[in-house]
Amino acid sequence: MSLPKTIRAVTQNGAGGTEVLELSTLPCPTPQAGQVLIEVAAAGVNRPDIAQRLGKYPVPADANPVLGLEVAGTIIALGSDVDDYKIGQQVCALVHGGGYATHAIADVGCLLPHPVPLSSEQAAALPEVAMTVEFNMMMRANLAAGEWVLIHGGSSGIGSHAIERAKAAGAKVIVTAGSDEKCAYCLELGADVAINYKTQDFVAEVASATNGTGVDVVLDMVAGSYVARNLECMNADGRYALISMQGGKDVQTSFELVLRRRLSIMGSTMRPLPAHRKAEIAAKVRKDVLPLIAKGLISPHIFARFPLDQVAEAHTTLEAGKHLGKIVLTVKD
Amino acid sequence: MSLPKTIRAVTQNGAGGTEVLELSTLPCPTPQAGQVLIEVAAAGVNRPDIAQRLGKYPVPADANPVLGLEVAGTIIALGSDVDDYKIGQQVCALVHGGGYATHAIADVGCLLPHPVPLSSEQAAALPEVAMTVEFNMMMRANLAAGEWVLIHGGSSGIGSHAIERAKAAGAKVIVTAGSDEKCAYCLELGADVAINYKTQDFVAEVASATNGTGVDVVLDMVAGSYVARNLECMNADGRYALISMQGGKDVQTSFELVLRRRLSIMGSTMRPLPAHRKAEIAAKVRKDVLPLIAKGLISPHIFARFPLDQVAEAHTTLEAGKHLGKIVLTVKD
Repeated sequence: MSLPKTIRAVTQNGAGGTEVLELSTLPCPTPQAGQVLIEVAAAGVNRPDIAQRLGKYPVPADANPVLGLEVAGTIIALGSDVDDYKIGQQVCALVHGGGYATHAIADVGCLLPHPVPLSSEQAAALPEVAMTVEFNMMMRANLAAGEWVLIHGGSSGIGSHAIERAKAAGAKVIVTAGSDEKCAYCLELGADVAINYKTQDFVAEVASATNGTGVDVVLDMVAGSYVARNLECMNADGRYALISMQGGKDVQTSFELVLRRRLSIMGSTMRPLPAHRKAEIAAKVRKDVLPLIAKGLISPHIFARFPLDQVAEAHTTLEAGKHLGKIVLTVKD
Repeated sequence: MSLPKTIRAVTQNGAGGTEVLELSTLPCPTPQAGQVLIEVAAAGVNRPDIAQRLGKYPVPADANPVLGLEVAGTIIALGSDVDDYKIGQQVCALVHGGGYATHAIADVGCLLPHPVPLSSEQAAALPEVAMTVEFNMMMRANLAAGEWVLIHGGSSGIGSHAIERAKAAGAKVIVTAGSDEKCAYCLELGADVAINYKTQDFVAEVASATNGTGVDVVLDMVAGSYVARNLECMNADGRYALISMQGGKDVQTSFELVLRRRLSIMGSTMRPLPAHRKAEIAAKVRKDVLPLIAKGLISPHIFARFPLDQVAEAHTTLEAGKHLGKIVLTVKD
């Protein structure tokens, strides 16, 4: 396969609304040692992309400043020392920026073989979500069979994957979502209890659903005023995994329950993790999550798809918050 | 050894100042299955005892309401199924209340053999401190060789043990304390850096001492306004172990660093832990801490000793906050 001289990629004319996004022609990047070049079939759209477009997400110094954190496609060039993958192979990958493009560089450690039952769009929707959920809910918060987990934003891309992942782990799942339609979607995915946070008090509903014991794990992307309420929802030895702060970073709470119930509060975002840590998480996804996908127990749901030149519409759809599951860019059929 | 019919114990006439404490005669308790009766030589005095005297520390329903969480002495009776210990053996123990007495019941899981180089008073000062530090700083926060730890209240009983324990683990130790004399004491115990929190800004001093990277572990008994400042002091992947809230339970902070630096905040208090968890911690102390005591690397420092009938003076001394190390009650020579 001969390599193109140039690629098409979404670039930004400054920071701001979707009007800053434009499609540009850039030189084709060359994979370095331990990297591959992927001809992109589809790219996932994620909330950090919105924050980055707005100039509110610090891009690591070594990252590609082009938007996009996950892709699916075909390997068309190998860097030196790449033995485990071949040209022509279908893969998906967490990328260090640059996913909104016809071609993207990925570190071998962050590659996943294309999961067999999935479309390219589904595969593109997998890496960021699966690695985020695996690292936070499974590796750090250590959700175990028989335990209760409270998943906020249950109908989001992260939330819908987390529901299926938690059920596959044998856990009992409570979600919050912002409409009855979203709650119904979460229940269809397997959630045991769905709480409409606009009409119900989730602290009271969690207490009721768990007979007063509370949940063992919380997966939260809200922070702000949710922190104190999440702590109230937690069982002894509970673990609270925070992955975003859509409700604000400022927290007022009491630490009395943290002490008395031996709670742990843990935060993380994927992007600043060193490459070797991302590779560990990807390895865990290959080992524990891909078999669940092969069995049909986890199946990324694509809410909307847009071609690369309609990236603005993709962002507008994500920001509107009415989606169920993931939004992707289709780059090549 | 014939058992006494009655014992002497510190009881309370309601909750309040030291005037509520009185010495009473009670029936001698009988060890149940898995328990021993200890003739107490000395008992440790701890901050939770003060809180309990004031009526501010919830006593578990199954606990002895008599004050006192740790003792050293001689086993004089065995419950059924006790094979690992013998009558006449010298031990120390974390007890489920009842330590301020001539005789106390201990669960076998919470017994430690009397550490050879220590006096009875030193042995009595060990269980609560060693188990608290081992559980929080080592087992939960997982302090590793080469890492930096920030220990607040460095000259306290907990703090001084934590300094020696952390140094024995190969960590680099920064402490805070409330006077230059206390700072000097911490440096003598092996702390690398001591910060007088009354005259210095510990956030700036920690940044300076660690070349801006911050500490990997914080051991804190303050909470309140220290929470936000502790988070500022922490390195990526840092672990914050909270063991008391002497500065108040209400917390205002930003969780931005929790997310960006992947911090963990973990709280615990020893007393509400189920018996099997206490036994696990005691087993860790037997395995990892007693050898350090045998080598002289950890040596409980007794600041003051009082006979049982001067328990009020013991509490007054602890509340005055001028002590360096531990305060004990001497019960029997």
